Amino acid sequence: MSDITRVALDAMGGDNAPAEIVKGAVRAVQQRKDIQILLTGQESVLEKELAQYSYPGEQIRIVNATEVIETAEPPVKAIRVKKDSSIVVAMKMVRNGDADAFVSAGSTGAVLVGGQVLVGRIKGVERPPLAPLLPTLKGVSLLIDCGANVDARPSHLVQFARMGSIYMESIVGKKNPTVGIVNIGAEEEKGNALVKETFPLLKECSDINFVGSVEAREIPYGDVDVIVCEAFVGNVILKLYEGVGGALMKKVKQGMMSSLRSKIGALLVKPALKATLKDFDASEYGGAPLLGLKGLVVKTHGSSTSTEVCNSIIQCVTFKEQKINEKIKDAILKTQETEKNENG
Amino acid sequence: MSDITRVALDAMGGDNAPAEIVKGAVRAVQQRKDIQILLTGQESVLEKELAQYSYPGEQIRIVNATEVIETAEPPVKAIRVKKDSSIVVAMKMVRNGDADAFVSAGSTGAVLVGGQVLVGRIKGVERPPLAPLLPTLKGVSLLIDCGANVDARPSHLVQFARMGSIYMESIVGKKNPTVGIVNIGAEEEKGNALVKETFPLLKECSDINFVGSVEAREIPYGDVDVIVCEAFVGNVILKLYEGVGGALMKKVKQGMMSSLRSKIGALLVKPALKATLKDFDASEYGGAPLLGLKGLVVKTHGSSTSTEVCNSIIQCVTFKEQKINEKIKDAILKTQETEKNENG
Repeated sequence: MSDITRVALDAMGGDNAPAEIVKGAVRAVQQRKDIQILLTGQESVLEKELAQYSYPGEQIRIVNATEVIETAEPPVKAIRVKKDSSIVVAMKMVRNGDADAFVSAGSTGAVLVGGQVLVGRIKGVERPPLAPLLPTLKGVSLLIDCGANVDARPSHLVQFARMGSIYMESIVGKKNPTVGIVNIGAEEEKGNALVKETFPLLKECSDINFVGSVEAREIPYGDVDVIVCEAFVGNVILKLYEGVGGALMKKVKQGMMSSLRSKIGALLVKPALKATLKDFDASEYGGAPLLGLKGLVVKTHGSSTSTEVCNSIIQCVTFKEQKINEKIKDAILKTQETEKNENG
Repeated sequence: MSDITRVALDAMGGDNAPAEIVKGAVRAVQQRKDIQILLTGQESVLEKELAQYSYPGEQIRIVNATEVIETAEPPVKAIRVKKDSSIVVAMKMVRNGDADAFVSAGSTGAVLVGGQVLVGRIKGVERPPLAPLLPTLKGVSLLIDCGANVDARPSHLVQFARMGSIYMESIVGKKNPTVGIVNIGAEEEKGNALVKETFPLLKECSDINFVGSVEAREIPYGDVDVIVCEAFVGNVILKLYEGVGGALMKKVKQGMMSSLRSKIGALLVKPALKATLKDFDASEYGGAPLLGLKGLVVKTHGSSTSTEVCNSIIQCVTFKEQKINEKIKDAILKTQETEKNENG
């Protein structure tokens, strides 16, 4: 295997495309020699953007794609119809082995649909979950699933728990990570129908370190490593994390500007505060992988700037080195064999 | 009708019972002459607690109840078996008209079950929602439902929207309040099965000001007044609000203590910051009412101190004055008549 990680990058997706995406690509290759970027999008536009920077030219190649999938487009149709879009062209490169990974700040729906339809699921994986890292007081936890797999079934959540554990151990380096299911109380009999059905299944899994229910209040304190939930709840958690954090910081700044005394104080606390709060900013942790696919697919935030794009690209090297998808493949295969043996 | 609001107060429920509950009752009657408190719980214990304070004696009366329902107890059984518990005794007073309202910091499950079984639903109300106020950058929004009604149906959510609108208009004083449904995207076709089914029903309601989907990220900014969701999601929102807020403030404090410079700054910003953050503390807004019942039932946070207990008691006066449950009764009745006429 080559030591170069080839990343197909959707240059046209996201609120700040193509400027920040291209800038992120340039920053990544300026930092790392072991990355090659295949920038998909409208050639003339991308050439103009790239012309602003000096960087090792052989590490970025433009792959022309004339169409753009917008965030509001129905994803299934968009993937089928816009065959020459930056997302479809890039994903096909992953499928054909011309790229090791795909990174996009574009339409989440299109990335999820494309991941399943174009890249394809690992055999035995029922639904590929989108799994971002959440900052906590103790470091990071993995939130799985935040994708479009709403109305999931208990068997899906059990697979999420397995895939999430592999991710936390391989990528984040957490040995024997704890797994919790998002619930509205600590007791096993609490919850909605999905949680009540899933709980005993997770308890039975010998290959994960299941610790029971986790209430939303506890998540930011970081006592549980893998936070399992269905996508609707996961999306609410991810977005509210961002919303409460942002609103509270706005409030803190307003409070600091309310008197002369506090304004002087604000000048003195600012540098320390900025450094501390950086740890609590989800965008510092790169993109969220769509796990359980036959290739690496990473979704970064729609509002990503060059920093997040660069981090997401560099993250792909670790994903490739750690063979995350092969580990998932092995784990799913092993579970299926065990189940087959148990059923006779 | 008497000008006195009679509040049956569960003196034995909550993490800080009975000390903080009794103290909250004393604070309430010290502030208001128009409240009478019926303190339910173990007589000897409550007498000892009350003996510490001086207050207008005629405004607090102990009603002996020998049993206590613990938070971890299965609520349906607890309500049935523990007939002499502080919750059951107090709720029966509301049912019999001996009290205007019930306030408890105890088991949420027992309060919800007791509300339905002992106090009873208003005719036509399918499920009574628990509706706390959330602090936002613009004031407060109502989150409805945060109760035990998980796996709700679309018709329940439509009633929540109606009851929430009445609450925001009558109690908070917001004219023609906006209503949004919690969703994972702005578009109508996004969401899980429940949201997709509920969305068109809400659009059809002529008696509410429905503005469409609200993403969790937007909630803290306060652009939508009534946030409709089923109880599992509502509970996650409420608890995460608290969790992210608490964790972030811990982080801010750590950051401020990290250098001598920032420590000096912290001293200067502290008073201003404290005042601002008080606005963003959910406990300042009293308890959450269980709407749609034949009496007033208010649940305060399990960790309530005397401040929250006192606020929740005083809130009952407004609930009574505004005849919140009668307005809900009228609205539900009107809807049923309209539906009857439409169906021929």
